[in-house]
Amino acid sequence: MLTLHSYYRSSAAFRVRIALNLKELEYQQIPVNLLKGEHRLEAHTQRNPQGLVPVLETETGEALAQSMAICEYLEECYPQMPLLPDTPLGRARVRSLAMLVACEMHPLNNLSVLGYLTGTMGVDEATKLAWYHHWIAKGFTALEARLAQDTETGLFCHGDTPTLADVFLVPQMFNAERFNCDLSAYPTLVRIAAHCRELPEFEKAAPAAQPDAV
Amino acid sequence: MLTLHSYYRSSAAFRVRIALNLKELEYQQIPVNLLKGEHRLEAHTQRNPQGLVPVLETETGEALAQSMAICEYLEECYPQMPLLPDTPLGRARVRSLAMLVACEMHPLNNLSVLGYLTGTMGVDEATKLAWYHHWIAKGFTALEARLAQDTETGLFCHGDTPTLADVFLVPQMFNAERFNCDLSAYPTLVRIAAHCRELPEFEKAAPAAQPDAV
Repeated sequence: MLTLHSYYRSSAAFRVRIALNLKELEYQQIPVNLLKGEHRLEAHTQRNPQGLVPVLETETGEALAQSMAICEYLEECYPQMPLLPDTPLGRARVRSLAMLVACEMHPLNNLSVLGYLTGTMGVDEATKLAWYHHWIAKGFTALEARLAQDTETGLFCHGDTPTLADVFLVPQMFNAERFNCDLSAYPTLVRIAAHCRELPEFEKAAPAAQPDAV
Repeated sequence: MLTLHSYYRSSAAFRVRIALNLKELEYQQIPVNLLKGEHRLEAHTQRNPQGLVPVLETETGEALAQSMAICEYLEECYPQMPLLPDTPLGRARVRSLAMLVACEMHPLNNLSVLGYLTGTMGVDEATKLAWYHHWIAKGFTALEARLAQDTETGLFCHGDTPTLADVFLVPQMFNAERFNCDLSAYPTLVRIAAHCRELPEFEKAAPAAQPDAV
């Protein structure tokens, strides 16, 4: 069976849970509590020297890191319910939407970056929140512009079935809501995310539904 | 012909130039001067609402954004000189190494983030440099650990031919050197990058070799 080393609130782990659910794959989840520093213990750094979650252990016991690499692996090994379109241009579009979230938004607002701002740099809470909201607004403005203008956009980010673009969008929307970001300027994103959340595959992957949720 | 909208110093554009060169593809380059704000002009935001480089225009005139999505597109459409291994596990390893650079290092140290730190937040030069060096050290320490321990590491990050892992590593090493980062703790990365730079495909992609270099 597949094993996901995960933390309920990690956006990157959330992405992989959605992908696993959409592909109807059975997996067990082993929590790694980031707040207690369990990701820095040797048990975890042996799996991933970077000390991050998620790590997917394959059926043959190989440990895979980085959510995009894991999703591509799942797509290659478990082709049912494809999460990428069937043309190179379609795949490039979906990957670029997912990468916009993964490379331009999430890295700036994760736990270790916010911790560096308030800890090492000693900035106050208001400055930290302004930072958070700035990168969310910048990324979502670009994403909204692309999704609103592209004819490929459908019920989901690409057409009428979920793809990796939705897998990456939904956890970022959750995160933005948790930090009270105003999402009214992104009607297309809000519409797509609401549609995704009606699906049990997304709902069951949400932070609150995980065994380690507190 | 392929057209790359690019900026000589952009790490992400540098990646795509290496991939294009390794695949021996002919392309023309159109400079977008980030320092002059040309990426915010409508001519460019029409191609990419996010206002980033690189953008690859395909032979049929489609504009593709995000360096990883572009590289995967090139890999699919131009299979010569493969930049991904031939097994799903090998591909997952190479993608996760590339993503470590693309998601954990580069986003924190690009021009707009450094500009936000010194501009909006008003931090001094020393604090900005400490920030830069912190994320380089964190990322390269993890990358060095993985590359030094994995049996798949060869002359390059994965075996003895270049892959997307090298395509992403080399521009990040260039960048770190430009900011005077001490790289002595990363002997495996230094060795691999030195080996890459001996290849004309990497050399011709370097910032100083571009038509818009100043």
